[in-house]
Amino acid sequence: MIDVAIIGGGPGGYTTAIRLHQLGFAPVVFERERLGGTCLNRGCIPTKTLVRSAEVFTLIKNAADYGLSADNPGIDFGAIYARKDKVIEQLVAGVEFIFRKRGIEVINRKVTGLSRNGDGWSIEMGDDSHQARTVVLATGSRPTPLPFMRFDGKRVLSSSGILRLRSLPASLAVIGGGVIGCEFAAIFAALGTKVTIIEFLPRLVSTEDEEISKRLATALKKSGVKVHLKAGVESAEHTDDGVILSLSNGKSVEAQKALLSVGRGAHLGFEVEGLTMDRSAVMVDDDMRANLPGLYAVGDLTGRMMLAHVASAQGLRLAEVLRALRDGDQPATPPLAYENIPRCTFTHPEIGSVGLTETQARERHGDGVRVGKFQFNANGKALGLGEAFGFVKTIAAPDDTLVGMHILGPQATELIAEGAALVQSGMKAAETAHLVHAHPTLAESLLESIEDLHGMAVHKI
Amino acid sequence: MIDVAIIGGGPGGYTTAIRLHQLGFAPVVFERERLGGTCLNRGCIPTKTLVRSAEVFTLIKNAADYGLSADNPGIDFGAIYARKDKVIEQLVAGVEFIFRKRGIEVINRKVTGLSRNGDGWSIEMGDDSHQARTVVLATGSRPTPLPFMRFDGKRVLSSSGILRLRSLPASLAVIGGGVIGCEFAAIFAALGTKVTIIEFLPRLVSTEDEEISKRLATALKKSGVKVHLKAGVESAEHTDDGVILSLSNGKSVEAQKALLSVGRGAHLGFEVEGLTMDRSAVMVDDDMRANLPGLYAVGDLTGRMMLAHVASAQGLRLAEVLRALRDGDQPATPPLAYENIPRCTFTHPEIGSVGLTETQARERHGDGVRVGKFQFNANGKALGLGEAFGFVKTIAAPDDTLVGMHILGPQATELIAEGAALVQSGMKAAETAHLVHAHPTLAESLLESIEDLHGMAVHKI
Repeated sequence: MIDVAIIGGGPGGYTTAIRLHQLGFAPVVFERERLGGTCLNRGCIPTKTLVRSAEVFTLIKNAADYGLSADNPGIDFGAIYARKDKVIEQLVAGVEFIFRKRGIEVINRKVTGLSRNGDGWSIEMGDDSHQARTVVLATGSRPTPLPFMRFDGKRVLSSSGILRLRSLPASLAVIGGGVIGCEFAAIFAALGTKVTIIEFLPRLVSTEDEEISKRLATALKKSGVKVHLKAGVESAEHTDDGVILSLSNGKSVEAQKALLSVGRGAHLGFEVEGLTMDRSAVMVDDDMRANLPGLYAVGDLTGRMMLAHVASAQGLRLAEVLRALRDGDQPATPPLAYENIPRCTFTHPEIGSVGLTETQARERHGDGVRVGKFQFNANGKALGLGEAFGFVKTIAAPDDTLVGMHILGPQATELIAEGAALVQSGMKAAETAHLVHAHPTLAESLLESIEDLHGMAVHKI
Repeated sequence: MIDVAIIGGGPGGYTTAIRLHQLGFAPVVFERERLGGTCLNRGCIPTKTLVRSAEVFTLIKNAADYGLSADNPGIDFGAIYARKDKVIEQLVAGVEFIFRKRGIEVINRKVTGLSRNGDGWSIEMGDDSHQARTVVLATGSRPTPLPFMRFDGKRVLSSSGILRLRSLPASLAVIGGGVIGCEFAAIFAALGTKVTIIEFLPRLVSTEDEEISKRLATALKKSGVKVHLKAGVESAEHTDDGVILSLSNGKSVEAQKALLSVGRGAHLGFEVEGLTMDRSAVMVDDDMRANLPGLYAVGDLTGRMMLAHVASAQGLRLAEVLRALRDGDQPATPPLAYENIPRCTFTHPEIGSVGLTETQARERHGDGVRVGKFQFNANGKALGLGEAFGFVKTIAAPDDTLVGMHILGPQATELIAEGAALVQSGMKAAETAHLVHAHPTLAESLLESIEDLHGMAVHKI
């Protein structure tokens, strides 16, 4: 009888397993591919290696801006992708090593069904089955196609398919200008591909603050990306070496490859009798509990923010819940405050954000909401880096509590860590006065944007 | 009669002036050069532009690591220095613009004396003088020479002199392996200069944690820098195109240029009768008050940590003290906690640190001190960047309060902002469990090092 069976070895599943093991449990993970899930194998990690190659290539092309020179900047697409695969391998092997060292068992087979069996659960794999007292579902999500446009791995690619390209496409149509679409658009544009983004909504990265969307669009356009907003794809026609998309705005886009990045859907892969779901997502409470006894779920499958760090945070929370259940006390960690989980977009410039957008804050807190802003072009480090495009925007509730921070600019994905710590700690603007930032750093701009809430930013007029 | 006269327009002086103006005062700044002081004109800012050129040059040389290529990587030293001057100009002009817009007066003359005059002070500039009710001394510091080795601007350079070079030296001897020495060593080594550091103490950046010193030395040596520790310079001989230094370890170092970076000394530049000083530093209390009525000091002149952000934080504190004095209430901000002010070294890899080193923590708190550590080579973003050398080390007191964090690695100077916020807020390790970090970011390593205090880092075995 398995102690805790975890179905799926992505960031949600493997983090749950390791933390449970740290807490004295004997978890078993069912994963038919390698550990790491979408994030490590075909998501966050591979894209970030591509982002880095794109960034370095941009710097090489702009060498003269730094008093440097380099002839014939060139791309070896195969080598860029090989580097990506090497980094994936290193990280996946790292997680596998931790599992081996800890002695956490991985059953490398596809789960085909799950059913109640006495007090526990029967996990079916074809003819075979395992029994477990507790089951954690962590099977993740997968890219959503369009009704008239399926992934074919050749012309129409998912975010996974585009990571298996063998050569740099001359042109790329990105259908869906969310985080994933914009990241790939930025990568391929930097490498020299002619990129067009087609977004149905009136703005890119529509979950972000409006100003962030606007400035990102400006930056992408500057780097050569064409952007169609409020435009849907109405039909797609295959050509000899690509696709022609007809848009609802009457225009058409011809491209060698199309990336279809209109969203991801939770994906369980088998039926569970009596399980409460919302479309394809498993419904869970604050303790990650599904509606059936001894059944939990974490990660994209829960249909909350589909982010690797949400999955792993849910896993840590669940492990603590199971520990408290075993030890007969209360969990020492609070439930996740989804609203205050940071979000990152690895475009150039990057986006890092946490909490409410300005619009959301005004809807919730009314006119007393304050907005502080600081532009990176008044920050010494940003000028030194030659990366001064962007800003930090801080939102405070009428009682001065910091409820949102939105950064577009250099290293925004790292800078938001401090902003998230402040927002997650429920800090008020005045309570940040003791925080001394090192000079010259980009992080100084966070504090100046907070000071600007009350018109007290030193370097702003 | 001047309301508040501020002598010196560096980060200490100009920040005091702007904040006082925001609070309704009419400050006047005495500065014989341009605003910005050492930091903007010949310190933090110019070096950071050079650091960036060095970083980009390193990336170009390593293009193949990223699947890229570039022929004939080249340096235009004049252009690198011109870029530096342009960034300085932009920032100095920015501060000047803020002053003009606010109508803060700058008296562009050298102050030659200061004496009591009735209830206030008489500020002398040769034959001329101004009267002020309150005076803030903010005249900064300057590089310290050695008794037998003066700055000559040709062979023996200060940190200011090296910023006026006209060509890349073939070789550079760096005397003094503190922050400034190591930063210039890293810059010039990356650009191709043969660099030797000579440090009297047993380790580089001796105010940092021992492990940081060790790993930095490893990194610098890897990039071609020769390091002599426990070695003093006993004599210097001029040659046709350089110097030959005889070291106390019996060795000798020949170099085209020598950078003398053995320290900086507070520098007032005139006498003030009755003023309590410690060597060249003006003694102040927590309110920045000197021992004479209506006289204050901020910045390097106070002989505390000689950092631009200490100067400006002292300025903000002083402005609030003067406001409270005027309004008859108490300052709304606390005195500076110098111990918890972050420190940055812009080498490659960078250093960011805050609070106690491991040794200091054990001296103060005994054996119950815990140390958590996390290596960047287990961090996905670091691997994606191709910058996985280094680690995060967190120190907790026996009661679990975070008392120090030490980062060597990519973007360490930015990452330390979050660490500083946690340490400055007196947070305990357990209280950070609700802080969710975005994935994949370097900042995740901070939390893993905190979790490692109790053996709970997920990605560490």
